[in-house]
Amino acid sequence: MQPIISFVGHSNSGKTTIIEQIVRILSRKGYKVGVLKHTHGAIKADRRGTDTDRFRLAGAGVSSISDDKLLVRFEKAQGHRPQFIVQALAKELDLLIIEGYKKEHFPKVLFSDELKAVSHKGIIATVGKKKPDSAKVQHFPPSKISDIARWLERDIIIPGKKSRQVVIEVDGKRLPLNDFVGEIVKETIRGALGTLKGGRGRKINISIDFGRKI
Amino acid sequence: MQPIISFVGHSNSGKTTIIEQIVRILSRKGYKVGVLKHTHGAIKADRRGTDTDRFRLAGAGVSSISDDKLLVRFEKAQGHRPQFIVQALAKELDLLIIEGYKKEHFPKVLFSDELKAVSHKGIIATVGKKKPDSAKVQHFPPSKISDIARWLERDIIIPGKKSRQVVIEVDGKRLPLNDFVGEIVKETIRGALGTLKGGRGRKINISIDFGRKI
Repeated sequence: MQPIISFVGHSNSGKTTIIEQIVRILSRKGYKVGVLKHTHGAIKADRRGTDTDRFRLAGAGVSSISDDKLLVRFEKAQGHRPQFIVQALAKELDLLIIEGYKKEHFPKVLFSDELKAVSHKGIIATVGKKKPDSAKVQHFPPSKISDIARWLERDIIIPGKKSRQVVIEVDGKRLPLNDFVGEIVKETIRGALGTLKGGRGRKINISIDFGRKI
Repeated sequence: MQPIISFVGHSNSGKTTIIEQIVRILSRKGYKVGVLKHTHGAIKADRRGTDTDRFRLAGAGVSSISDDKLLVRFEKAQGHRPQFIVQALAKELDLLIIEGYKKEHFPKVLFSDELKAVSHKGIIATVGKKKPDSAKVQHFPPSKISDIARWLERDIIIPGKKSRQVVIEVDGKRLPLNDFVGEIVKETIRGALGTLKGGRGRKINISIDFGRKI
């Protein structure tokens, strides 16, 4: 399971403020949290004629700028499915919170006030002053932010960490593994690398490029 | 070898324009090229009060925004060594061109006009109207951009691809492997995954999180 949750609802429902507070709580607990906001309006960050804009227009896959505090990366989203963008971002995080992309198949928290019907797919919780009659899922009043954070930790972050103990990707696609096969792969690699100098650690990553299909 | 090259020199030496043209040539050849510009001035892209700025200040490891064309990621650079930032960026690229970070130990192309002395470390080529007397390295006039691109392809991109056929990282640090051990790891994993459904492909990535030191 990828640790991804999408916050959806009316545009003035207070999503941004609640996400901000959840990020603060979970970051202080030591989790690496990321946020992705999807917008239909054009992004204004990469202004015309800046160097990053020029490199990007020349075809750079990634055009970035850093100072001593911040790294800003501009990447092409065109031609990539939202699922691909989201999964690449989530890879290095304990939790990725998405605002938007409501048509995509991510688990969702719905801000239910001022909504006539609860119609999005994949809703696993609602936030609102009043619990919607129709939804048979977890419900939180908007004031109970620490409850939402605790629930995300228990139901998304911790199971996500567990399921990512062994991840095998073939040409960018995750290979389904049952616990038994995962355990064999883990123990085989632990044994093989354990004999090499510097081969012991908490996290191991192995990349192989065969150049052609094996 | 990581496929990284740093362009250094006087601030009006024409570096940006030449990088832009090199990106165009190499991207058209199908390579995934990235650029990182390091600046000492503050970056203006993430303006105060924007949602990405709020999420970042709340502690988000990655704060990002996307529309249908572009993905913009804001990440903390503070507390990370330039080497770490650069290597993380280069990982998914065929070539990363850096503008700046001249004090870091990356292979460098020096724009030598108007420089009194060629004093940076790690210079592997110079660009300028006149070949500097002191440097015993590859030299290109600024008009010969396709020559620079061809040289980067031959001396950086292609050897870089070869050396990344097998990469093992332990806790984010690359394990030195000789060809023999690399070949054993490659063939063992090829054999093991080949028996699983969907286990054959061009690129394999395995991540293992032991949770504690093995």
